[in-house]
Amino acid sequence: MDETKGAVPAGASAMPAKPDAWVTGVRPEFEDCLRQLVEIPTVSSDPARKSEMRRGAEFAADMLRHFGAEARIVNTEGHPAVVGEFRAEGALRTITVYNHLDVQPATPSEWTHPPFTYYAEDGRYYARGATDDKGPALVALFAARRVRSCGLPLNIRFLWEMEEEIGSPNFEPLVRHHKDELHTDSVLVSDTIWAAKGRPCVDYGLRGLLGFVLRLKTGTKDIHSGLAGGGARNPFAELVDLINQMYDSRTGKVRIPGFYDEVQKPTKAEMENFLASGFAVPKFKAAHGLKSLRSNDPATLMKSLWTQPTFEIHGFAGGYSGPAIKTIIPPMAEVKLSMRLVPNQDPKRILTLLRKFIHEVAPEVEVEPHGFLEPYLGPSTGPYAEAATEAIKYGFGRKPAFIREGGSIGAVVSMARVLKAPVLLMGLSLPEHSYHGPDEHFDWGQASGGMKAFGRYFERVAEI
Amino acid sequence: MDETKGAVPAGASAMPAKPDAWVTGVRPEFEDCLRQLVEIPTVSSDPARKSEMRRGAEFAADMLRHFGAEARIVNTEGHPAVVGEFRAEGALRTITVYNHLDVQPATPSEWTHPPFTYYAEDGRYYARGATDDKGPALVALFAARRVRSCGLPLNIRFLWEMEEEIGSPNFEPLVRHHKDELHTDSVLVSDTIWAAKGRPCVDYGLRGLLGFVLRLKTGTKDIHSGLAGGGARNPFAELVDLINQMYDSRTGKVRIPGFYDEVQKPTKAEMENFLASGFAVPKFKAAHGLKSLRSNDPATLMKSLWTQPTFEIHGFAGGYSGPAIKTIIPPMAEVKLSMRLVPNQDPKRILTLLRKFIHEVAPEVEVEPHGFLEPYLGPSTGPYAEAATEAIKYGFGRKPAFIREGGSIGAVVSMARVLKAPVLLMGLSLPEHSYHGPDEHFDWGQASGGMKAFGRYFERVAEI
Repeated sequence: MDETKGAVPAGASAMPAKPDAWVTGVRPEFEDCLRQLVEIPTVSSDPARKSEMRRGAEFAADMLRHFGAEARIVNTEGHPAVVGEFRAEGALRTITVYNHLDVQPATPSEWTHPPFTYYAEDGRYYARGATDDKGPALVALFAARRVRSCGLPLNIRFLWEMEEEIGSPNFEPLVRHHKDELHTDSVLVSDTIWAAKGRPCVDYGLRGLLGFVLRLKTGTKDIHSGLAGGGARNPFAELVDLINQMYDSRTGKVRIPGFYDEVQKPTKAEMENFLASGFAVPKFKAAHGLKSLRSNDPATLMKSLWTQPTFEIHGFAGGYSGPAIKTIIPPMAEVKLSMRLVPNQDPKRILTLLRKFIHEVAPEVEVEPHGFLEPYLGPSTGPYAEAATEAIKYGFGRKPAFIREGGSIGAVVSMARVLKAPVLLMGLSLPEHSYHGPDEHFDWGQASGGMKAFGRYFERVAEI
Repeated sequence: MDETKGAVPAGASAMPAKPDAWVTGVRPEFEDCLRQLVEIPTVSSDPARKSEMRRGAEFAADMLRHFGAEARIVNTEGHPAVVGEFRAEGALRTITVYNHLDVQPATPSEWTHPPFTYYAEDGRYYARGATDDKGPALVALFAARRVRSCGLPLNIRFLWEMEEEIGSPNFEPLVRHHKDELHTDSVLVSDTIWAAKGRPCVDYGLRGLLGFVLRLKTGTKDIHSGLAGGGARNPFAELVDLINQMYDSRTGKVRIPGFYDEVQKPTKAEMENFLASGFAVPKFKAAHGLKSLRSNDPATLMKSLWTQPTFEIHGFAGGYSGPAIKTIIPPMAEVKLSMRLVPNQDPKRILTLLRKFIHEVAPEVEVEPHGFLEPYLGPSTGPYAEAATEAIKYGFGRKPAFIREGGSIGAVVSMARVLKAPVLLMGLSLPEHSYHGPDEHFDWGQASGGMKAFGRYFERVAEI
């Protein structure tokens, strides 16, 4: 999507200069900054890239300073984070813009061009990290410099994490440790994907997560299923039975008593917003490579994806998993499971329910938790939501749909919890940007619209 | 167990010489033959041992000739077999003695002495293959030479397979191809284990096997359980549901309609025999390293192990099976299953029932069969059973219990089917012999009792 002048409400902007002109004017600089940023391979999961991670942080801090912000590198037990700030005279409010500068790994053989070499074509910018999340980070920086130069009385802080792709293991400790310096009135996160091009959306809800491994030991060695079968217990069979008692795979319903007690139903207004999001079943199927779905009704599907908890089996361990079969009864079996949780389910309470249930029906089964993430519900009405609506309409010519997101973003939950500030998610990525995939790219349409939208959002937020 | 003179019924033997004397007399020769045989590492599963397999076959054929038998090596598409024969003048009957000369692999570090070096101590003979199945093969050979030297009018043929430990892939073709030359009135197999020392048993039943893999594909790639979970199908969850519909892990009952139609219940006499076998629950648990069982009642357990079909899960494939969890929804899941079948279940009919059931409840699931073995039920009454009873009483001082065996021996089924002859299983191995384990051994008590028992059995069979 490109500039949509016709959609700009006449006289709606508080900006002194024509927004389109400044955006068009910074394009070469934006592209140059993006090039330099994506060519540092900040793959947080790769221990061999440790020095590149440091170089990425130093480059980002220098860039912030070059843009006129104060900046510093904040070390953690893992990769560092970068904090920058435009302090404004007379500012009553502070907004924190969160992005992450670490990226997913990339397999060069799957890419048309080398993944860590910037390649631009027809307004598209190819490189690992272009859309997730270096491009959106830069868009916010350009918008912030713009409003600052116009004298907007708003402190704008940048919090750039470098461990998002590895689950943000040190982010909450960092925020807790620097809680006072990081005090903010609201947070803007730009790290999500629209449901379709031309259909902007704002995410106000995230699912949480409770991951766990169930393990049952019934013996000490592989045994012969002929000699002992019928007498020996089969640990897989008992886990299968337990799973079946916990969960109905046909309806997707979890059978653990109390599991749904805190699940908040989506309101009529929420469902209307979902239906306006541009979510399309065939696109969803194609994006995930799925042959068929549990439902083909868009409303049912969005309700399931964004407002309902899940129960998933990720895999089993133990026994024989090679080609064909091997007729052993294994001494141990393990199943890897997780539940996505929704507002207001508390992962700790759900774990307690799970343990209680398993203790009653299969007391020998060990429960090993792996990962807690709380669900999140941010503003979908009120001043921040209104500011976002106006800003996006200004930037992209269309009001956003307020939707939720099926995934979990630990950093969002940490910021909401520790900083006690509303977090609004205004993503700029499109489904066609190949988020996490080969030939990842960002584009000038989303960048330029994003600069306008973020600029307008800062203006509105300064007035709240 | 050693010589049990007191148990020999006076005047019950038709042998002209005192049996104990001849048995005691051949002990040095037996030990020397066993030494030479076990020191050839005939590990059929190891491609690097191909020339040793050939050397083992040649050694065995030479030994048969040295004992006065005709002998030849019969080639197959895999390892060869050895066929030997003592032809007797005026013989009306032929008995075939089946053993196998291939062995399990051995990990030297787990053994007290090198596995392919014969080591004798206190009448125990340590080496891989000593009890499974070279020792019993030699016992039968010594007994056969003895009755031949006494002019017994019985043709005694030896059929020594060299692929038993790899599932007898070429045995049935071999028997079919040489069906006329292999014509026999009965078959004696010595390759089974007593339930306890001092408690001889004859196995007259084997379970069959139907192995299969179930596979479900629901997508094309790993997907994000947050972004798509709740909408996407989970192939593991659907397989778990299918397994649960096929099978109740708590009772062990298969829920496929018609599955039990042909299952033959054990008679009262059979159950009495089982209870006389010396089977002990604590020993069974210890032998298989099991913490607990589905039942601790010996009768229930033997009934399950020997006369009831099973349903076992051997493992799963697909998805994530590494440490902790990975929150993906996999595109494909596979489960490896098998059923042990009992007389008169037909594996082909059971496969048809299985396919029909799956087609109805989960039509997308692929069924891939891996392995058919028919169950076997041999004589437990009648002249062969009576001959075995008398022979074992004579050799070991105690009547055998007629029991069944939970495993499947493909060669037995092949011989029964192709040669249309009753197959009787008189094993000589003891639970303490470490069958398939480290420090495998045989002992002179079982060897000497076995020589007497087999000799007497040949005598009785010649009269049938």
